Amino acid sequence: MKSIALDIRADADHAIVWRNQRLYLLDQRALPREEKYLELRSAGHTATAIRDMVVRGAPAIGISAAYAVVLAAQQSYAKSPRNWKRGIQEDLSCLAAARPTAVNLSWALQRMQALIDRLPAGEPVAELLAEARAIHQEDVAANRAMGELGAALIEQRTSVITHCNAGALATGGYGTALGVIRSAYAAGRIELVYADETRPWLQGTRLTAWELVRDGIPVALLADGAAASRMAQGGIEWVVVGSDRIAANGDVANKIGTYGLAVAARYHGVRVMVVAPTSTVDMSAASGADIPIETRDPGELLNWSGRALSPPGVGAWNPVFDVTPAALVDAIVTEKGVALSPDAKKIERLMA
Amino acid sequence: MKSIALDIRADADHAIVWRNQRLYLLDQRALPREEKYLELRSAGHTATAIRDMVVRGAPAIGISAAYAVVLAAQQSYAKSPRNWKRGIQEDLSCLAAARPTAVNLSWALQRMQALIDRLPAGEPVAELLAEARAIHQEDVAANRAMGELGAALIEQRTSVITHCNAGALATGGYGTALGVIRSAYAAGRIELVYADETRPWLQGTRLTAWELVRDGIPVALLADGAAASRMAQGGIEWVVVGSDRIAANGDVANKIGTYGLAVAARYHGVRVMVVAPTSTVDMSAASGADIPIETRDPGELLNWSGRALSPPGVGAWNPVFDVTPAALVDAIVTEKGVALSPDAKKIERLMA
Repeated sequence: MKSIALDIRADADHAIVWRNQRLYLLDQRALPREEKYLELRSAGHTATAIRDMVVRGAPAIGISAAYAVVLAAQQSYAKSPRNWKRGIQEDLSCLAAARPTAVNLSWALQRMQALIDRLPAGEPVAELLAEARAIHQEDVAANRAMGELGAALIEQRTSVITHCNAGALATGGYGTALGVIRSAYAAGRIELVYADETRPWLQGTRLTAWELVRDGIPVALLADGAAASRMAQGGIEWVVVGSDRIAANGDVANKIGTYGLAVAARYHGVRVMVVAPTSTVDMSAASGADIPIETRDPGELLNWSGRALSPPGVGAWNPVFDVTPAALVDAIVTEKGVALSPDAKKIERLMA
Repeated sequence: MKSIALDIRADADHAIVWRNQRLYLLDQRALPREEKYLELRSAGHTATAIRDMVVRGAPAIGISAAYAVVLAAQQSYAKSPRNWKRGIQEDLSCLAAARPTAVNLSWALQRMQALIDRLPAGEPVAELLAEARAIHQEDVAANRAMGELGAALIEQRTSVITHCNAGALATGGYGTALGVIRSAYAAGRIELVYADETRPWLQGTRLTAWELVRDGIPVALLADGAAASRMAQGGIEWVVVGSDRIAANGDVANKIGTYGLAVAARYHGVRVMVVAPTSTVDMSAASGADIPIETRDPGELLNWSGRALSPPGVGAWNPVFDVTPAALVDAIVTEKGVALSPDAKKIERLMA
């Protein structure tokens, strides 16, 4: 993967760029220190970039994978105009396996596959690119719609707590949870955004803070363990988060720490809003128990910049997502509408 | 402050050493990377060491301050054998102000002051040193007693979660919460110790893990935000923590994150044990609302090794302690006995 400088200013709303038959991803691992793009020329490289968290956030992973299918088709068609459809299957499998929890990844791949199945003979790139762009643009539109729907739930001016990064960087642009926060801020209903730092990757510190500062929205970081204590002091009406996969009964998989935040919110009478497009809903998962939870290298907790924080012989438990049961969620906001106190019936109605 | 190598192996039970009329503190900021002692020749230096977290943990802060009074008396008596008692008052104030939350600090200083008030004319160092050593040794004895009392509450073999470091490093030796865990482990009742990494100072990662690995007690680190999720999976009977100050009604101040852990524990039917000597109980604080909570530099969250993690313009909320109300505590274990479901009456009885 080549690191290059694009002639656009690095921007959260342009973290995924298609240009000159190449995919460019803003390298989120380097933010906020360095604003650079990686140039991706193949689906394999894109899968690696997804696994290594160059790009993260369920919708952004799905969009990146859709563009990666275009890369795969370009190469496969150049190699064999007759058998290109068979030729890309390995690339599709590789992309699907890049990360397990975000269902938007397989959702986007299935949508691209459905188009591939329909395509007649001939150069497929223009049509596949149009579909990838549609997935991308629909996500931005969904975020705008969710922003309005979610902001309407925030009735009075308040501070909110968010976790991880569910912003423009995690999506096609604008953001899910941060989209709601942006819309609510524009409407004068956000006092201050508390962003959990979100260990071990510090998406709150590095990404959410970066996005909000650029938008001029006041943000204060706090240790993940401090959120309950902050709630106890009052002035927090909502926790607003994104999701990586929502089960058919409304259970929500999201960044590790979300569940504890939801437990604390319930204890303090703070409401929990989950903001995610319907591409995040997995109707084949009956409940959270059916959602695969990714466990990553213990080294993410045990080391810092390649240097050991802990003595040898210490293990670490490092699941990077958890499941918040629907019973602890007050609202699921999708582009198709809102489910208050979500359950299987309400989710089914939303997805109809 | 001079960094020196002592001819004893760096050891959690010898983190505070008095030798040749000098105080030596194991520099806990450098653990586990480096095992070195700082030589302290004055009370002022000791106050700085306490403020800068060379030594931390409420009982360890109290013991260090007691030895620092000996340093102050040495210097003051050398300067003026007649007026040494007046001469050390500034040092005592400086020590008392080093950190606000741990009440053991003022408790130890008051005990030393009471002896100073009783002392006749003449060289005071031997008697003051005997008192500091008594404070130190009584703390170790208290930890051993609490270890037995607390371990007896852990009825069946289980994994436990602990937060921050309430071990030998935080005390005169053996530890409060880790003392209980050591005793329970020796009795075969601890499966695995989950240690919260404890942001922002990572006392769990750096100190608790260091202590437990040396003792051969199995330990797994987890992100602070993962603890609730771990509880949801079962197999955790107890959360075991220390305290920096306990109010007369049983409210408990401890490292930021303890409150959220206690809220999650209650939600999951996990019990919360607070282990602290009676020197941690402040009968003048009617409730947790009367306990001063230290807020430290936002830079502790915003930077890492002097390098910014977050873009400029981002604030941070960095209280380093929180208050867990007595209603969320199942047991307070002191060297004088155990208060189950603590309240003002039970604390009063314990302290009688």
